[in-house]
Amino acid sequence: MKISIVKIGGNVIDDPAKLQEFLMLFARLEGKKILVHGGGVMASKFGQQLGIEPKMVDGRRITDEATLDVVTMVYAGMINKKIVAKLQQLEQNAMGFTGADGNLIRSAKRPVKDIDYGFVGDVKEVDTELMEVLLEKDVVPVFSAITHDRKGNLLNTNADTIASEIATAMAVKHTVRLYFCFNKAGVLIDEHNDDSLVPKINEDIYDELKRDNVIHSGMIPKLDNAFSALHKGVSNVWLGKAENLILASKGKKSGTNIERHRYDLY
Amino acid sequence: MKISIVKIGGNVIDDPAKLQEFLMLFARLEGKKILVHGGGVMASKFGQQLGIEPKMVDGRRITDEATLDVVTMVYAGMINKKIVAKLQQLEQNAMGFTGADGNLIRSAKRPVKDIDYGFVGDVKEVDTELMEVLLEKDVVPVFSAITHDRKGNLLNTNADTIASEIATAMAVKHTVRLYFCFNKAGVLIDEHNDDSLVPKINEDIYDELKRDNVIHSGMIPKLDNAFSALHKGVSNVWLGKAENLILASKGKKSGTNIERHRYDLY
Repeated sequence: MKISIVKIGGNVIDDPAKLQEFLMLFARLEGKKILVHGGGVMASKFGQQLGIEPKMVDGRRITDEATLDVVTMVYAGMINKKIVAKLQQLEQNAMGFTGADGNLIRSAKRPVKDIDYGFVGDVKEVDTELMEVLLEKDVVPVFSAITHDRKGNLLNTNADTIASEIATAMAVKHTVRLYFCFNKAGVLIDEHNDDSLVPKINEDIYDELKRDNVIHSGMIPKLDNAFSALHKGVSNVWLGKAENLILASKGKKSGTNIERHRYDLY
Repeated sequence: MKISIVKIGGNVIDDPAKLQEFLMLFARLEGKKILVHGGGVMASKFGQQLGIEPKMVDGRRITDEATLDVVTMVYAGMINKKIVAKLQQLEQNAMGFTGADGNLIRSAKRPVKDIDYGFVGDVKEVDTELMEVLLEKDVVPVFSAITHDRKGNLLNTNADTIASEIATAMAVKHTVRLYFCFNKAGVLIDEHNDDSLVPKINEDIYDELKRDNVIHSGMIPKLDNAFSALHKGVSNVWLGKAENLILASKGKKSGTNIERHRYDLY
């Protein structure tokens, strides 16, 4: 089957009007589809209200037990279920999941080296069989960015990674398109100017832009995820604004299309 | 198929040791099974920490929007996902749901008469077909007490009612046993004395005990739910302590068995 996997980030989640607009577009997306959502600022907001201060080590967020409770409540509870209810209203048979549900995404607690990240998981396995059963029944899975280790622990997991891992696992048997919606028009030469969009990027261009420090910080793991998915069999990866999702799905000019040119030879 | 539907209440949820003990028993329960959990005191606790005071009218709790967010976070997020992760550790392929997920339980916002209960739902329809698909795949559905109206609203719903409604919907095609686990040994003549247990109750005895004010307050909706389920085709209803679940499932003496004697004649 053909499956679209769409990841939306905090900028869409945090703005009810934007979220509603996005969900209406997502509902129009044809064929089988899976949504993966990040958390946005709400977890930090609720955490602070509950007196739980974000813990950072070397600029990286640490997920202690109290923080894990908060992200589980906010991501898997409030955000996930609101999205599901709104998609149901749009006649999409959405079903919300963490990786623990149905053991759909098993991860391993990140080993402690220099930093103990706490309850953070690296994805190990996606159960494609159960997912296929659901997709065949026209269920639209909606994933929050939480997985588990099958040892009883829930684990905070990067939402981009979850989208990529689901995409690559499903790509073994199916044709998969992966859409990363975020707060920019795509890969930009000047990050403050949407007109500087790079409409197509391959690994040669990526390496060049990294070398010249045009692509840096948050964009690097995002694009690494994208290229990794392409290497592992995902057909297309797209990066752009949520509002351009339908254009992108119809192959019309918008956002950045990520291509594995370097691998086109074989 | 034979399906056991087990409802656990706040007294189990609020005590991590009791919850773990219960989940180990639940894992041992043979055959297809569905778990329904209430919320316990955690929602009130978090609500207060977030500055949301419980709203009561005539002794009844009102679910305003802020309260709905809190119960969604706590019931569908933290509690539901913790239970799922722990059941996964016990090699049960648990999958956590609200009624919104997969449109499994559709309800209607309670109409405003004397009291506006806010975002509270009365169950209208259970999707047994999708549930059967999951049960056949050995998935163990775990429901939190939240449903939706398919108009985009999540709705707070009584957990006993959810358990009864799932039971009666599944009873149309299957043999269903319904277990209500709560903080007492069963129906008691003296509510402070577990030795005053009524091992079997039918509607004649129920009417008598109500008339004599032996059964009152919270027990009445619980037993009404139980008898309603029996009338609608559920095979057995049991009421007792979570720790006696396995005994009850093997037909051994424990708790209160609820019988529809009055209807045995036809």
